[in-house]
Amino acid sequence: MQELIEMKPSVMSSDEPDRPRQPGTFLNRQTGKSGLAPGKGDVDFPVCVILPAGGSGERTGLLTPKQFCLLLSRPLISYTIQTFERVSWIQTIVVVVAKESMDLMAGIIQRFRHTKVRVVPGGSTRHRSIRNGVLALKEDERSTAGRPKVVIIHDAVRPFVEEDLLYKITMAARGQGAAGAIRPLVSTVIATTSEGYLDHSLERAKYRASEMPQGFAYDVIHQAYERCTEADFDFGTECLHLVLQYCSTNAKLVEGPPTLWKVTYKRDLAAAESIVKDTLSQSLCMITGGCEHARILADTLQKAFFVLQMELDIIPDLTGDNVRYLFKSWNFIQFSINDSALDTIETTFQAVEAANQSLLYPVVVVWDPECWERSVSKVAEMTSALIRERNPVFAGQLLQA
Amino acid sequence: MQELIEMKPSVMSSDEPDRPRQPGTFLNRQTGKSGLAPGKGDVDFPVCVILPAGGSGERTGLLTPKQFCLLLSRPLISYTIQTFERVSWIQTIVVVVAKESMDLMAGIIQRFRHTKVRVVPGGSTRHRSIRNGVLALKEDERSTAGRPKVVIIHDAVRPFVEEDLLYKITMAARGQGAAGAIRPLVSTVIATTSEGYLDHSLERAKYRASEMPQGFAYDVIHQAYERCTEADFDFGTECLHLVLQYCSTNAKLVEGPPTLWKVTYKRDLAAAESIVKDTLSQSLCMITGGCEHARILADTLQKAFFVLQMELDIIPDLTGDNVRYLFKSWNFIQFSINDSALDTIETTFQAVEAANQSLLYPVVVVWDPECWERSVSKVAEMTSALIRERNPVFAGQLLQA
Repeated sequence: MQELIEMKPSVMSSDEPDRPRQPGTFLNRQTGKSGLAPGKGDVDFPVCVILPAGGSGERTGLLTPKQFCLLLSRPLISYTIQTFERVSWIQTIVVVVAKESMDLMAGIIQRFRHTKVRVVPGGSTRHRSIRNGVLALKEDERSTAGRPKVVIIHDAVRPFVEEDLLYKITMAARGQGAAGAIRPLVSTVIATTSEGYLDHSLERAKYRASEMPQGFAYDVIHQAYERCTEADFDFGTECLHLVLQYCSTNAKLVEGPPTLWKVTYKRDLAAAESIVKDTLSQSLCMITGGCEHARILADTLQKAFFVLQMELDIIPDLTGDNVRYLFKSWNFIQFSINDSALDTIETTFQAVEAANQSLLYPVVVVWDPECWERSVSKVAEMTSALIRERNPVFAGQLLQA
Repeated sequence: MQELIEMKPSVMSSDEPDRPRQPGTFLNRQTGKSGLAPGKGDVDFPVCVILPAGGSGERTGLLTPKQFCLLLSRPLISYTIQTFERVSWIQTIVVVVAKESMDLMAGIIQRFRHTKVRVVPGGSTRHRSIRNGVLALKEDERSTAGRPKVVIIHDAVRPFVEEDLLYKITMAARGQGAAGAIRPLVSTVIATTSEGYLDHSLERAKYRASEMPQGFAYDVIHQAYERCTEADFDFGTECLHLVLQYCSTNAKLVEGPPTLWKVTYKRDLAAAESIVKDTLSQSLCMITGGCEHARILADTLQKAFFVLQMELDIIPDLTGDNVRYLFKSWNFIQFSINDSALDTIETTFQAVEAANQSLLYPVVVVWDPECWERSVSKVAEMTSALIRERNPVFAGQLLQA
């Protein structure tokens, strides 16, 4: 997920782009952005997650079930799993997939180095799949603390969920037995007659859309599935409803942010990708190689990037204290004024690789110092577009500012 | 919205990209794709449209109200207006905007050559704005047929609506007095207690989300606004509810496609842009200049584009009967084997310009015939990426396959 864009006034060859060896870590850098960063001490009981991921995704109009669709070369479900893995107080993530997808899922876990995941075969309906997950947690051999006190149920196709919401849902589930995220209704909800006419419209203020995540005391959700009927397994969709009906547990409702939305249609994949791209494109780091002329160029570029709402750090190299930029920024630009700077470029490559952030798209922008002032905004726009689009097909190209 | 990508084994300079002079015509080419293409004879009464566009768009988190946000250099509302303009039996589109946006709107109408639009100042709430539109149509001086029989009300921020749905809504409104588009509920809807707990969840099958467009007999919507209260003007959101309450008209409900969704959040802008890009990227047209070698290369590329799900037409030039490709395709590739082909390129430029489809992003891909077989898929991928992303910043670049 790293960019290495080199800007120099002469042409040079560029390596072939690597596949990202570990592109799955970017969300980690967001930790601490949430208003709340609970320490492990705040959740002092075992919490596990169930991700039902057996859906066929027919509404996207795509052949691949949407949880396995790729965003920037990585399956949607891997983003969702990562979101839970980064939360220190979550122990196990049970992913429930259709039998025919077990191998695919195992491959994703290996490739994107997921460590807290356990894969369980799904049932014929959503509720049967979730029950399989609940039963698998009954004797969770991975957990040193025994079976979980709280189970969070989430959708594999809602990749953006923040730790503070998970915390609120977990604590409310521990206290009340059940909790669920809600959102205001976007559309008016209407009741229809059997002939297809308007019967009445609901008063929006009294209703909410029930979203995910939901949290349950383990014993409550386990009991609900013990007691419910085959019809519930076949046609029911709402766990909150089951625990109300079979355990008399009124779920606590917690308002969530709009990013909780469920990736449902093909357009939602584009929307999700734009969110990932926004996250990755907020900042970049420019390495001047200690050259004064490069520093002046970098200073000028900084203003142009500011206009494009990108934060730019300027450093001479990635050694010493500057190593921290490897964990702060996603995008690196190596300045090179003449061919003698090849050593510096090699050093930068090595530093980025050593940080386990493999290079994805090395692109060279050729920038003529004779007219650099005239082309400052063009260089910034071109760089910003390369970083934003992250299209590997342009790797190795020489671009002219 | 045209691409002109030239592929030749030698370097040549490229013109600066033009602004599209008329980028607002692409949806016209989709006409006839809908299952139904009613002639004017099918709707033999006057139909007008009201587009309330006074919203502040606060949910997008952007400063610009979302109806004015740009997708590929063009405001969202201009796509919506175009959708209605292309329907032959729609006479006038009344756009209701906030007073402070009247000049902005007039500029959009001029720049994107909208011809059926009338701009009316909005009121303090959505219902007051729609009423202003209804009253403006009472004496529609533009209409030779007098006031409309049916008024369609739509949202400026739902740019994708197809003619067959408009037809169904219009005919149902003419017959029943009112009609509205509906969609199945995506989330379960729940009723909440005043303390923030689950009270009960609604049975999904009995309810629908009320969407847009909605259609009304002119006299019905006019009467509803004559009779309704100040509280309705202040707090009501649903015209279907007003005509039920004040005119005892039960609206006919018509199931619409998922593309009807309302652009609400910033991510929805990315989703809408992806739909526009998909539409523009389905096909391309390759001009060989009559050269046999170019034709062989083009044939090989055709297979590679097929893999990328793009349809490729191959023609020698854009003269004679081939002029029709100017109105079929959005993207043109000019093959050029040596510099003597500059004349052919000039001819292509002129043909595209004459068709009022100004060039947007001329890009040159340099393709070495010595190793063309090896790089066929790379050329196709690069071309496809340029066409898909439509980023003007790469105009004039030389790319190396």
